[in-house]
Amino acid sequence: MAVVPLLGDGEAGAEARAVFADIREKRQTDYVNNFWRALAHDPALLRATWERVQAVMAPGALDPLVKELVYVAVSAAHGCDYCVHSHTAAAKAKGMTAAQHGELLAVIALASQTNALATALSVPVDERFRA
Amino acid sequence: MAVVPLLGDGEAGAEARAVFADIREKRQTDYVNNFWRALAHDPALLRATWERVQAVMAPGALDPLVKELVYVAVSAAHGCDYCVHSHTAAAKAKGMTAAQHGELLAVIALASQTNALATALSVPVDERFRA
Amino acid sequence: MAVVPLLGDGEAGAEARAVFADIREKRQTDYVNNFWRALAHDPALLRATWERVQAVMAPGALDPLVKELVYVAVSAAHGCDYCVHSHTAAAKAKGMTAAQHGELLAVIALASQTNALATALSVPVDERFRA
Amino acid sequence: MAVVPLLGDGEAGAEARAVFADIREKRQTDYVNNFWRALAHDPALLRATWERVQAVMAPGALDPLVKELVYVAVSAAHGCDYCVHSHTAAAKAKGMTAAQHGELLAVIALASQTNALATALSVPVDERFRA
Amino acid sequence: MAVVPLLGDGEAGAEARAVFADIREKRQTDYVNNFWRALAHDPALLRATWERVQAVMAPGALDPLVKELVYVAVSAAHGCDYCVHSHTAAAKAKGMTAAQHGELLAVIALASQTNALATALSVPVDERFRA
Amino acid sequence: MAVVPLLGDGEAGAEARAVFADIREKRQTDYVNNFWRALAHDPALLRATWERVQAVMAPGALDPLVKELVYVAVSAAHGCDYCVHSHTAAAKAKGMTAAQHGELLAVIALASQTNALATALSVPVDERFRA
Repeated sequence: MAVVPLLGDGEAGAEARAVFADIREKRQTDYVNNFWRALAHDPALLRATWERVQAVMAPGALDPLVKELVYVAVSAAHGCDYCVHSHTAAAKAKGMTAAQHGELLAVIALASQTNALATALSVPVDERFRA
Repeated sequence: MAVVPLLGDGEAGAEARAVFADIREKRQTDYVNNFWRALAHDPALLRATWERVQAVMAPGALDPLVKELVYVAVSAAHGCDYCVHSHTAAAKAKGMTAAQHGELLAVIALASQTNALATALSVPVDERFRA
Repeated sequence: MAVVPLLGDGEAGAEARAVFADIREKRQTDYVNNFWRALAHDPALLRATWERVQAVMAPGALDPLVKELVYVAVSAAHGCDYCVHSHTAAAKAKGMTAAQHGELLAVIALASQTNALATALSVPVDERFRA
Repeated sequence: MAVVPLLGDGEAGAEARAVFADIREKRQTDYVNNFWRALAHDPALLRATWERVQAVMAPGALDPLVKELVYVAVSAAHGCDYCVHSHTAAAKAKGMTAAQHGELLAVIALASQTNALATALSVPVDERFRA
Repeated sequence: MAVVPLLGDGEAGAEARAVFADIREKRQTDYVNNFWRALAHDPALLRATWERVQAVMAPGALDPLVKELVYVAVSAAHGCDYCVHSHTAAAKAKGMTAAQHGELLAVIALASQTNALATALSVPVDERFRA
Repeated sequence: MAVVPLLGDGEAGAEARAVFADIREKRQTDYVNNFWRALAHDPALLRATWERVQAVMAPGALDPLVKELVYVAVSAAHGCDYCVHSHTAAAKAKGMTAAQHGELLAVIALASQTNALATALSVPVDERFRA
């Protein structure tokens, strides 16, 4: 149903299979989700994306769950259905509770609302908010 | 510079001034930022928006700083310059460090990138990501 | 400040000047706004756009003011600052009152909010809403 | 298929069921659409959203049908498939004719086109369009 | 599944059928895709859109394949699933190779990423980039 | 005016200055534009972004000018003013003519228009467009 066929393990080339193996090892699961199987048509893009995901989503100054919440918010704002599903699932796997999910949705909805108002009114930025 | 003039304290009507007073009290500052001064042309919309902001951004299952980070992310995805400025400032006021800001930006950028790839490839949602 | 210089009457070519003349006549004003002066670098695009504006915005099954309200709403959703300004001004010129502007903003804000919720929850379309 | 299961009447909690009952009474129909059943996981968000919809969409300075047309336009600009379907259906229920639908689509398409041109050219706002 | 039924040849009116005939002749295929069948409810909009597509996508200063690549990029950025599918198919029909598709995706992803960063940082435009 | 101060050569840390030096060498110019000076607050993000730009924008299956045209299109669709300016300038530097710029704008405008129509009508993807 995608723009390109999703590549199974037997269809992907050696370079893509190596990334699949790394995904399996790092995530400790045998499951490789559709996003990576679609990207497998371009092994260089697949590898670069997977490496960037690992670098950015690793624990750091922000908690991994917080990073997933931000990811869900950006995905919803962009209207990416695949990404909303996969990152909501990832947030749940990292411990997001139903109450946290509800509050996340409320913040996304509020921000969308005030973003629209500020834009429709073209409100000038307050001097004190500038660096 | 806005689509409507920003209303000063002397220009706003009684109902809008009451909201300004509430903003000052709850935020413990004399400063009322431009967003509220633009909304003051419609006191009912001003009040409804201010009340929703208080209800949603209060501490709950998510930390107030986390809520601000999500707010910045949605604002960036929507390209709302006013909102990016005001909520980045709010996040800093709630303790966001430079390192956290950098990681927030990296997640926003990564999500924008993978959102675009998933959309341009129309990747179908994996069965296991569905509720 | 634009990506291309805005062409004054003396700088535009003959074909663009002819469109400027038509804008002046149809709108009964001497003022040609910046959008057309930027498009004047490509007279064919200028003419096609001006002709489409006239065809679509003419009175029909929908009132011209209603069409302007829809135009403002789309422009706000796309974050087009120029368009928000020019079409809010056009709506005022066609009789939009302050109360109508306030309600327009409230609908735009509400739609942005529920759009975000429906997307973040990936709500499936009800069978009865399908054609 | 949603990110969360849609709650049937027997699965929703007491607070959500009370909102369902209110929707049924106000809309004079037994049908509660999927959007509300997805929101029912968070009764506070469900209630706040439903109350806001009633307040904003009520007759006022703008006709209810005009408000629905604006809603459809914002939903299309945000790419919210659920919202396009539900609000187009609502507009038809409020009397939108096929001719009005066609003109609405033409305005949405025209606005999208000129929004893109104004943005791609970064046209500066005319002084006379500023408040 | 659309918001309006897709009109078959026997359901479309005479004016819409004339456009269908022109599409078949110009594209040298009997197949009329769903986009045109949905637009057929409004023959004037159908004709105006079809004529604009022909005028803009014809060979000119830019190669037809380059125009399709740009079309795919805009469609992905807007999250239009239909458009991503139809214009990726059109690009392939005009000779887009798998390697070109991969590079197109990489540019779209990179642009989405740096767009998000520039917006989230509100980077001011360099004087030398202004016209 | 940005959300963070733009770092001059004397303010950036050693790691950021090393990236500035690489930008100067690779681009054969002394000028480091504002985007990089804003990113310099987070040297790791600065370096990762700069390296990705080089990898993706290098000549390959697509011509560097074509890549810039795609970049401009995505930037316009996202409403990123900074990016529209910088990549239009880059496209001109790579040889984009005024005629090509005009056709690029026409394609962006057309795609925005048909994207909006396909979305507002929720046109189902034709079977033959699926992989």
